[in-house]
Amino acid sequence: MTSHIECQNFFRSLQLLDLFTKIGVKNLILCPGSRSGPLAIAAGELNKRRVLNVFNSIDERSAGFHSLGISTASGDVSLVVTTSGTAVGNLLPAAIEADKSCKSIVFITADRPLRLKNCGSNQTVNQEEFLNSVCRSNLSTNLNGIHENNDDDILKIVETVKKQILQSPGPIHLNIAFEKPLDISLKNKKKNFEVFERFYLNKTYKFLKNDNQNKNIQFSEKFFKRINLSNPGIIIVGPYQGSTKDLFSFNSALKKLQEITGWPVFVDPVSGVSAELKGLVENWELILKKNKNIIQCDQILRFGPLSSSNYLEDFLLNFEGLQILVKENNIRKLDPIKKSLEYDFGISNFVNQLLGAFLNHKKKSKPLINLGQVLIKEGAKIKEILKEQLFSNTEITEYKLANFVPKIWPENYPIMLSASSPIRDWLTFSENATLTRECFSFRGASGIDGTLSLALGIARITKPLLLVTGDLALIHDINGFLIENAIELNLTILLINNNGGNIFNNLYKNNLDEEELKKLFIMPKSINWENLAKGYQVPIKNVSDLNKLREAFEWSLSMQKSVIIKVDINVENEMKGRNLILKKILTS
Amino acid sequence: MTSHIECQNFFRSLQLLDLFTKIGVKNLILCPGSRSGPLAIAAGELNKRRVLNVFNSIDERSAGFHSLGISTASGDVSLVVTTSGTAVGNLLPAAIEADKSCKSIVFITADRPLRLKNCGSNQTVNQEEFLNSVCRSNLSTNLNGIHENNDDDILKIVETVKKQILQSPGPIHLNIAFEKPLDISLKNKKKNFEVFERFYLNKTYKFLKNDNQNKNIQFSEKFFKRINLSNPGIIIVGPYQGSTKDLFSFNSALKKLQEITGWPVFVDPVSGVSAELKGLVENWELILKKNKNIIQCDQILRFGPLSSSNYLEDFLLNFEGLQILVKENNIRKLDPIKKSLEYDFGISNFVNQLLGAFLNHKKKSKPLINLGQVLIKEGAKIKEILKEQLFSNTEITEYKLANFVPKIWPENYPIMLSASSPIRDWLTFSENATLTRECFSFRGASGIDGTLSLALGIARITKPLLLVTGDLALIHDINGFLIENAIELNLTILLINNNGGNIFNNLYKNNLDEEELKKLFIMPKSINWENLAKGYQVPIKNVSDLNKLREAFEWSLSMQKSVIIKVDINVENEMKGRNLILKKILTS
Repeated sequence: MTSHIECQNFFRSLQLLDLFTKIGVKNLILCPGSRSGPLAIAAGELNKRRVLNVFNSIDERSAGFHSLGISTASGDVSLVVTTSGTAVGNLLPAAIEADKSCKSIVFITADRPLRLKNCGSNQTVNQEEFLNSVCRSNLSTNLNGIHENNDDDILKIVETVKKQILQSPGPIHLNIAFEKPLDISLKNKKKNFEVFERFYLNKTYKFLKNDNQNKNIQFSEKFFKRINLSNPGIIIVGPYQGSTKDLFSFNSALKKLQEITGWPVFVDPVSGVSAELKGLVENWELILKKNKNIIQCDQILRFGPLSSSNYLEDFLLNFEGLQILVKENNIRKLDPIKKSLEYDFGISNFVNQLLGAFLNHKKKSKPLINLGQVLIKEGAKIKEILKEQLFSNTEITEYKLANFVPKIWPENYPIMLSASSPIRDWLTFSENATLTRECFSFRGASGIDGTLSLALGIARITKPLLLVTGDLALIHDINGFLIENAIELNLTILLINNNGGNIFNNLYKNNLDEEELKKLFIMPKSINWENLAKGYQVPIKNVSDLNKLREAFEWSLSMQKSVIIKVDINVENEMKGRNLILKKILTS
Repeated sequence: MTSHIECQNFFRSLQLLDLFTKIGVKNLILCPGSRSGPLAIAAGELNKRRVLNVFNSIDERSAGFHSLGISTASGDVSLVVTTSGTAVGNLLPAAIEADKSCKSIVFITADRPLRLKNCGSNQTVNQEEFLNSVCRSNLSTNLNGIHENNDDDILKIVETVKKQILQSPGPIHLNIAFEKPLDISLKNKKKNFEVFERFYLNKTYKFLKNDNQNKNIQFSEKFFKRINLSNPGIIIVGPYQGSTKDLFSFNSALKKLQEITGWPVFVDPVSGVSAELKGLVENWELILKKNKNIIQCDQILRFGPLSSSNYLEDFLLNFEGLQILVKENNIRKLDPIKKSLEYDFGISNFVNQLLGAFLNHKKKSKPLINLGQVLIKEGAKIKEILKEQLFSNTEITEYKLANFVPKIWPENYPIMLSASSPIRDWLTFSENATLTRECFSFRGASGIDGTLSLALGIARITKPLLLVTGDLALIHDINGFLIENAIELNLTILLINNNGGNIFNNLYKNNLDEEELKKLFIMPKSINWENLAKGYQVPIKNVSDLNKLREAFEWSLSMQKSVIIKVDINVENEMKGRNLILKKILTS
């Protein structure tokens, strides 16, 4: 009987992980633990045979975000495996973000069998409930132990996961009880693997296919006729939330839409929009700040969540015309302005329906193209001012980086922006220069946690990657460097060291003295980054002149591994310079 | 109206935090964020006036564990304040541990007002649900914003918290919606604080008093008469779960109990039991391993949760006589053996009821003292073997540390043991040497996360503290060093560097090759500890000879700040030496 459980634990784990690879999983992040032993051993076998890539991470929180990065960049589901107890609780931050950004991860957590629950058994907690509040599904195997499950049970679990992911991508929790023994003898492992190899490994299964296109679309033609193609309008594209696999069709549909309407387009740095799109307006956020009255139209098509821009929010809040919000893969309400009609079925369906509605109607008239011309011209004017102001000296500031970095980091190489300051600065100053490649950010729950692990996850799929991050966000997730072979991944970390949460300087500076501001908001830390980087064996270089940055990127790319390029920010100069530029623009 | 909300946000925050100090709160851990601005500003004002100590922590996970350390060591509730979003999710690991170890923390999390929930607003998530699965109460202020709450509302919240803590200590979640503006002008702050100072600051309130003693005790005299004081028995004391404030009465009751029964006592290194207790058996775990048949009795009184000992578990599982389990402050089932009667009302009540039941009965007879003599003698025999074997050379091993460290770390200075290896080794090898002072550990959910932050929290209250930890546990929570003035606290970290999770060498070594074992279980990391410590500005010293350890402790104590003493373990020698000693004992 003992040997029976030992074999079953291993065999069912093997079967489960293998079935996951058959619905598209390629990567598994493994955290340390004993209760999860059978899963670890099974994962090890599949890794050896190149059926599944396995990477370890000693911090479960980092593991969760790493998996999120992999899922985001690849468009494939990925797995995280942890042991029992607080280990499971550490997954919550990444699960929240996966929920909000609609990315699929399966969190597989090992648990004790039912007989040991609720009786004070060591490391035994009500972990099956920990991720309930954010997971799309909360599944479990037999509560007495996975050894009591059969082939059909295991298949059903994976089918359920597949179905859930097709319906609504997001995090899923699978809690698995394991009865002892958790280890397996060499002999039994060999024997069981042979059976598995012979009867299961190459077996094919019929899983559900993507049926996104066949969703019952409820919007009537009437809805589309509220759009008046004879009048001017604008297209605003927020952070991209769809699958990276759908990015091409997203851009095709957007191109078609822009051609039909001729409307000008405002895009977020992480919108996923191609630089080749016509009608793109540069510096649109500064236009909104300078003179939003220039935007004469009565209809707006919005795509995805709202960008982090107070000017945009303010503009939309006061906009009296029609607002339609089109979402990818997200059936949640996504409009904090609450003035839009929300369309749940993605841009491709939207454009097709729009075309259908207008097929028999008059073609659009010319005048509306004027709005685009006006805005593009206004953007170009601001561009001239920026050019003049930004490069009058070579001191590095955050707003200069936002403008300069996407122009010198090689085209086609992706970029990730951390939350808080970078994403906001790039929105204001990057002049659509991000659009030649994929750009990533946290645009679900907008936390600063998990930044490094997420970037490393993206870099596993699409490297070389540039991560632009503040010091607080990087240090918060410094355990990302403990993920297996993190140091070997091709990630350039541009560390903007402003010694704390510089964003609070803009928010709370006026009414607190310096010491209070530091203690309560900015929270600067005495970190010696050179030593810290050496502690993790990560090469680091300081850059203090804007003109040296290109060289530093060349160095980092030649290293072909994870490196830090640190730039120190003089917070006073930063604020002064920024205000001066904004003043120049406003008075131009 | 704008200024009205600004003032109310500040004033209600001030009132709330001040009321918490009136139910015993002395410390608040503040995490960065904007939405929590009013709480941060209010906390800052109370900190300046020494009404409340405020310490910041940029990692919310570490903040949670730090707060847990403070609550554990002080016996007082402490507070954690975070902003909205994933920040809240990061509190879950500490909340799980607080739940299981019955320690009170109030997690105060800032949220957006109801109008911004569920509509895609930035950083807005269903955070009110994140800690539900483990918190004793989940409270909130007015969902439109705390500015809509009045005096009574705020008072009621704090009364609810107080009541909950008296009934069943543990974590509580208080979610607070804040409407903008979050900052407050200097003028308004001054004005509001004056009102607060005049009418509220020195106001006294009547809160519930501790009514633990008056609980309706349901156990009949019959229950107590199952204990036969004429027959031998043993007392087994597990990790202490009560409040540190009740430790004296706990020990008094235990002393009385031992005097009544004369029974021998097995205690956990973190049992809280005083070294002066009579009947203490040394090396009891090794006695169980060597020859459990020596324990001839038919009744066992157990206190608190089960120690992490397979031998003890096995012994209790096969024990045919009476087992009574007495718990402090914990109404959960606590017996994974499932063979005990559980008594929920603490040792003081237990001893009083026991005395009552036996007052009119015959006195205990002498023979039962013999069992104690037999066991103490057996323990002393093992002690001789250990003495001979442990110090035949001066190479440092983990089991030697467990024996030696509590003998050379100054009496009365507390010690904290991290989960996984250290706590298990000390159980086996420490010979009750921990009992001259308070010892701490995670003995709720037994995670390795939060180790450093918890130790720093304890060190804030009872310093100088010694933390004994493995490398994995320390690096997992390295962000503890980012807690405000962490480096200035008087914490000696004895870092047992065995390069990964050495515990897995005992569990999975036989059936995996070395590379697999490392990748799937041990997960060693290439950390340069000297550089890492310098990165955080923490002094570090290597010790490679057991005899140099005393000197190193003297150095660390003279520093009066946080330092690391690192000892490198040769894993092969460790295993060999350990097996040899155990063999010697078994065959003695």
